Amino acid sequence: MTSEPDERRPRLTPAIADVRRAVRASIDGLTDALVLVAVSGGADSLALAAATAFEAPRAGLRAGAVVVDHGLQDASAEVAARAADQARELGLDPVQVVRVAVDEESAAGPEAAARTARYAALAAAASDLSASAVLLAHTLDDQAETVLLGLARGSGAASLQGMAAESGIYRRPLLGIRRAVTRAFCADSRLEPWNDPQNLDPSYARVRVRERVLPVLERELGPGVSEALARTAEQLREDNDAFLQMIDETIEDIVEHVEAGIGVAVSALEANPAALRGRIVRFVAQSEFGVALERVHVQAVLRLVTDWHGQQPLDLPGFSAAREGGLLVFRASE
Amino acid sequence: MTSEPDERRPRLTPAIADVRRAVRASIDGLTDALVLVAVSGGADSLALAAATAFEAPRAGLRAGAVVVDHGLQDASAEVAARAADQARELGLDPVQVVRVAVDEESAAGPEAAARTARYAALAAAASDLSASAVLLAHTLDDQAETVLLGLARGSGAASLQGMAAESGIYRRPLLGIRRAVTRAFCADSRLEPWNDPQNLDPSYARVRVRERVLPVLERELGPGVSEALARTAEQLREDNDAFLQMIDETIEDIVEHVEAGIGVAVSALEANPAALRGRIVRFVAQSEFGVALERVHVQAVLRLVTDWHGQQPLDLPGFSAAREGGLLVFRASE
Repeated sequence: MTSEPDERRPRLTPAIADVRRAVRASIDGLTDALVLVAVSGGADSLALAAATAFEAPRAGLRAGAVVVDHGLQDASAEVAARAADQARELGLDPVQVVRVAVDEESAAGPEAAARTARYAALAAAASDLSASAVLLAHTLDDQAETVLLGLARGSGAASLQGMAAESGIYRRPLLGIRRAVTRAFCADSRLEPWNDPQNLDPSYARVRVRERVLPVLERELGPGVSEALARTAEQLREDNDAFLQMIDETIEDIVEHVEAGIGVAVSALEANPAALRGRIVRFVAQSEFGVALERVHVQAVLRLVTDWHGQQPLDLPGFSAAREGGLLVFRASE
Repeated sequence: MTSEPDERRPRLTPAIADVRRAVRASIDGLTDALVLVAVSGGADSLALAAATAFEAPRAGLRAGAVVVDHGLQDASAEVAARAADQARELGLDPVQVVRVAVDEESAAGPEAAARTARYAALAAAASDLSASAVLLAHTLDDQAETVLLGLARGSGAASLQGMAAESGIYRRPLLGIRRAVTRAFCADSRLEPWNDPQNLDPSYARVRVRERVLPVLERELGPGVSEALARTAEQLREDNDAFLQMIDETIEDIVEHVEAGIGVAVSALEANPAALRGRIVRFVAQSEFGVALERVHVQAVLRLVTDWHGQQPLDLPGFSAAREGGLLVFRASE
């Protein structure tokens, strides 16, 4: 008589192998600590939770979960409780459900407000539980959508670089994994994911990108567009990181405090290529005045360097820029 | 009695003013020489030709035209002759029609072959006529289309940077001008542009992007997507130029000739951010072996630097890469 296959133990299918390998690579280097998985109950985070439950102990780590209940839908508490149960069944421990208050009237919009509340709750849970990392289940498809949303903003590498594989306590093991693979993982593992109705609500730009834009791009430009967008994000993130590192290494040598403001040496700006000049101006605007400058404003400021003919000071949102001798001087608006 | 308006002299409409201003800025700095406009007879190049005919003499320049007949359509000779007549009527002189032979069986595809033949003809005409610049009529819409076509390739800043406003003898004054403006220019000036039927042929990827992809992006992500794509191109071109300049300034210090190959100092690669490391490897592959490396190959080469544990040499298309002591050594394949 042949042995019965164990119903509860999933076969090692290609989808399961792919996701586990991605998790293994992502948690490599973490030691002797708790890793938290952010679980919503959707296919992506269930697959991530299951793979982490498998891989973490083999890497000498404990695996827990945090379920954030945004309280935005009637059934959100039940959805969160069910996701937490699934995480516990997968062997994650501890499993915390955190209910957050989302400011639906936020000027930044309800999506951004939910995001802010979610990350605050994840960071607080990581701190409470002394976790060394929080794993997020964003996939290659999420990354491609993020790049397209950034394209529509048109602010270059900064808006096209998508999400980082590693940023502070956050890690995104699945950025190279297609969403179809996490669905296959769940089917192969007999996990029943929750299908968030918001994922089909076309009032969200991200849903329109997923349901209406990407399919057209795939059809008209050939398959592989999502992968191409994800590769682009990865490379542009490296590019942007390189520029930020260069600024970090030089900024202290080229700025000085002046009366009621900050001055940047014109000679240093002139010596740098346009890409770095623009980023230095953006950096000063952001760090001194909390202002995210648009390209057109950056270019106006830089004309005080590259096309200087005695112009008046420039009034920009939140601050002014003036050429004073060998310095470009920035001062807060009164 | 009021004076009759001069039928032949166009009013200065907003479209005419915009295109003229763009041409004025683009030819600024050219002195005492002939400027050629590449004219197809379409709205973009007719508007460019008319604006150049107006602006060039005011900048102390002569304006001529080159019409390239690709010979790919039955009526191409008549189309070219008509475009040349229009250019002459606009006052351009000399006006040259050049018939080129396009290799329709080219491995790179007929579009690329036509492009190669066209640029060769323009460069030859500029040389024959001692022109200092050739003005091309690519618009903001062309630029947005180019960025989307590059996105589908997914090779980062290099494929998203679109077309340069200035490159060698070529200048593109209209990269900031919408195609609708050149059409309005022609209507305002009573110029009758030729409508190339190829511009509606969906077997061209560019036509599909124009007719099917961009309208969906505009509808789903809001208006302004084309402008956003063009801004992105401009910024990514600056980024890429900055990296190329950095490589140009350092490459001689970090490479050395070794037996039957070229070596790059591992320490120099380690000291640079990933963005620059990758570009140095690409630069060596391109300049030494004429190979355009894909990202996955670049990453494999760089693991010999960042994850060195005694790996075997890597066989890549056209060359090999090996770590030999403190050098990364590249040799042509045998």
